[in-house]
Amino acid sequence: MRMYDIIHKKREGGALSPEEIRWFVSGVTEGSIPDYQISALMMAVYFQGMTREETVSLTLEMARSGDMADLSSIPGVKADKHSTGGVGDKTSLIAGPMAAACGVKLAKMSGRGLGHTGGTVDKLESIPGVKMDIPRERFFDIVRETGIAIVGQSGSLCPADKKLYALRDVTATVESLPLIAASIMSKKLASGADAILLDVKTGSGAFMKTQEEARRLAQLMVDTGNGAGRRTAALITDMDMPLGRYIGNALEVREAVEALSGGGDRRLGALCQELAGGMALLAGLAENREEALNQVRGTLADGSALGTLKSMIAAQGGDPAYLDDTSRLPLSPVCVEVPMPESGYIASLNAELCGLAAMELGAGRETKEDAIDYGAGIVLAKTKGEYGEKGEPFARLYAQTQAQCQRGLERLLAALDITKERPSMGPLILERIGLD
Amino acid sequence: MRMYDIIHKKREGGALSPEEIRWFVSGVTEGSIPDYQISALMMAVYFQGMTREETVSLTLEMARSGDMADLSSIPGVKADKHSTGGVGDKTSLIAGPMAAACGVKLAKMSGRGLGHTGGTVDKLESIPGVKMDIPRERFFDIVRETGIAIVGQSGSLCPADKKLYALRDVTATVESLPLIAASIMSKKLASGADAILLDVKTGSGAFMKTQEEARRLAQLMVDTGNGAGRRTAALITDMDMPLGRYIGNALEVREAVEALSGGGDRRLGALCQELAGGMALLAGLAENREEALNQVRGTLADGSALGTLKSMIAAQGGDPAYLDDTSRLPLSPVCVEVPMPESGYIASLNAELCGLAAMELGAGRETKEDAIDYGAGIVLAKTKGEYGEKGEPFARLYAQTQAQCQRGLERLLAALDITKERPSMGPLILERIGLD
Repeated sequence: MRMYDIIHKKREGGALSPEEIRWFVSGVTEGSIPDYQISALMMAVYFQGMTREETVSLTLEMARSGDMADLSSIPGVKADKHSTGGVGDKTSLIAGPMAAACGVKLAKMSGRGLGHTGGTVDKLESIPGVKMDIPRERFFDIVRETGIAIVGQSGSLCPADKKLYALRDVTATVESLPLIAASIMSKKLASGADAILLDVKTGSGAFMKTQEEARRLAQLMVDTGNGAGRRTAALITDMDMPLGRYIGNALEVREAVEALSGGGDRRLGALCQELAGGMALLAGLAENREEALNQVRGTLADGSALGTLKSMIAAQGGDPAYLDDTSRLPLSPVCVEVPMPESGYIASLNAELCGLAAMELGAGRETKEDAIDYGAGIVLAKTKGEYGEKGEPFARLYAQTQAQCQRGLERLLAALDITKERPSMGPLILERIGLD
Repeated sequence: MRMYDIIHKKREGGALSPEEIRWFVSGVTEGSIPDYQISALMMAVYFQGMTREETVSLTLEMARSGDMADLSSIPGVKADKHSTGGVGDKTSLIAGPMAAACGVKLAKMSGRGLGHTGGTVDKLESIPGVKMDIPRERFFDIVRETGIAIVGQSGSLCPADKKLYALRDVTATVESLPLIAASIMSKKLASGADAILLDVKTGSGAFMKTQEEARRLAQLMVDTGNGAGRRTAALITDMDMPLGRYIGNALEVREAVEALSGGGDRRLGALCQELAGGMALLAGLAENREEALNQVRGTLADGSALGTLKSMIAAQGGDPAYLDDTSRLPLSPVCVEVPMPESGYIASLNAELCGLAAMELGAGRETKEDAIDYGAGIVLAKTKGEYGEKGEPFARLYAQTQAQCQRGLERLLAALDITKERPSMGPLILERIGLD
């Protein structure tokens, strides 16, 4: 086979055969195909798309390009969730333990944050002592014992995806639905779960700006997962405002504990129940959605969800006492109070700008090499839909320096839109695909 | 500026500004833009096209990426012709001296052949002693003295085009009209002529397989040349059968001398008159096409066209006696006669397959590094539209070995289609653009 012919075929709108896709992915993995031919093909795919069959083939080959986790030694149904990225999204820390407390097994591999969206690995690492690089046997042991463990993605997970993503990122070929679906789903397939629940975000803070785009991506990923033999479903959820009221790594751990204790932000709580219930349903632990949600709520009421998170933290090297008293978690020294700049309702609170504000504070990283300040971030006293008088507290910012707070403040105020009339609030869960 | 933004803009169908195109071409020339971003942009251009303004900008910037020949020290109107490549195309060796004999000045820079199409440089080098790398001042002197000189393209001509073409060639992005037009026209602009006549080929042996495609390319190149301030016109001509009856380097020199002596293939002669007349007309040496054609025919009748070629050959280091007795030119030792395989009319003679047959004989090169056998090639006793009895001579093949002749024979017979009915012959000149 020749790469030229593959590029030419796709350029002309043809569908690549499974053999051609296998040859391509193996060439990408081995480094035998030059970058300039790979990027030309990615641009041709951007314009010509891929069939469902091509997307499934690409996803499977990318998954097989590195280590495929074999979870068969862990009893029970292994589930996984994936969010397409948002601002203030700490749902893995909440829905994960809830689902595990229902009996679902989660051997989860997570990534670090980049740009304005956070990563579960960074959030967990903000708890002193917690380790994310755990040898596989110990990783599986923790899942067997506590129902859940969350580790960092190993370097040998989907090397073809790493290579392709790095190239797409600098050649304006990220925004292709089949390529996005293959990138996400290859890592999920390689992580080994039997059941996969996707949380596809839409809105100002999300990658998919419109619900229609989000629906197409969600459907394609569900089809790809099912095509590869995994029970796969998706939620399409709103990311037009930040999720919850805390943005920043250790701050989000605090909010997760609050939610697992049955309190905190209502929308965040509702989404986590949907996600945990969805995993329980996909794992066959409930007959229907209502029953699954009831089970999940039980884990809040009886404390088993919070207990599960504490067990996992302990097993991964952390001190669960930090979760009993979250005020001991890192908090950056400089705090700036942000009052409401005028009286009125918060009509919108742009999630992406809030994420960029948190980055200015030191809570995120622009490049993979940047260090993170775990104690930095934003606490929102008020969020979208709520009323405040001018001068009442709107938010608190935490950072290492006043200068960071000043830059964060400017970004945050740019995210804020205040009106006199009460704004209408859209639903949090916009659609469910493959969930009864 | 960032290359990412330029790729993204073109991907979204935007028109690049002159500043963006200048920045891009200078980055390509300096090597500061990675190949994978260049090829992604080329593929985006393939799909989204370029406006006329973008094409003119790209062409000018590519022309300026290296040395721009300044022909102002040569008195008279400097003209140039360019053919988009064909099989058996020796028109530069015929029309060039004819136009020069009319008073047009041709300071021509030519390329080598690659693939199934031949190059003027290789044809001239088949004449013992002829030099193609002539210092600029001597090159200009020859033009001043004889009216014409043909040299090889220097390495410093359009380096951006060299780089882009090499990448396009391996990323399936050659077939983009604005990119083809910019590649051809940038070299013509850099070569410095005031008037440019394009011969855009269409048919089985040409790059443009349909007349519609050829017309679009021709119009775009004419607009680009005029947009850059050069008088530019185009012919669209048939390349469905080989041009003339000789294919191969020294063999084509023989046929050129035959044509300049007023004999030889009628279609070849007619095209060369059109090309020479077109240059004379663009140079303002005639009032109209008819007058230009009469002048051109006069250079055949009075021997001045052949005399001009001989003067040029002598000035470039060759012995003009080879043109007085062309049997002294190189001829490969193994000769195979090919009879008509059956009786009938030659209904078609696929030009591309004839070109590939000549390559098998050693007359062409597959890669830039391949050596050429100047004496190899094909002499057609009969061509499209002509009748022959089974066993009558159809062609003679020349090569270094019987094995080469055998492979060439197979290719040549595959090019041949014989019918009982006399086939209809289409016109050679299909359209004229910008010529009265």
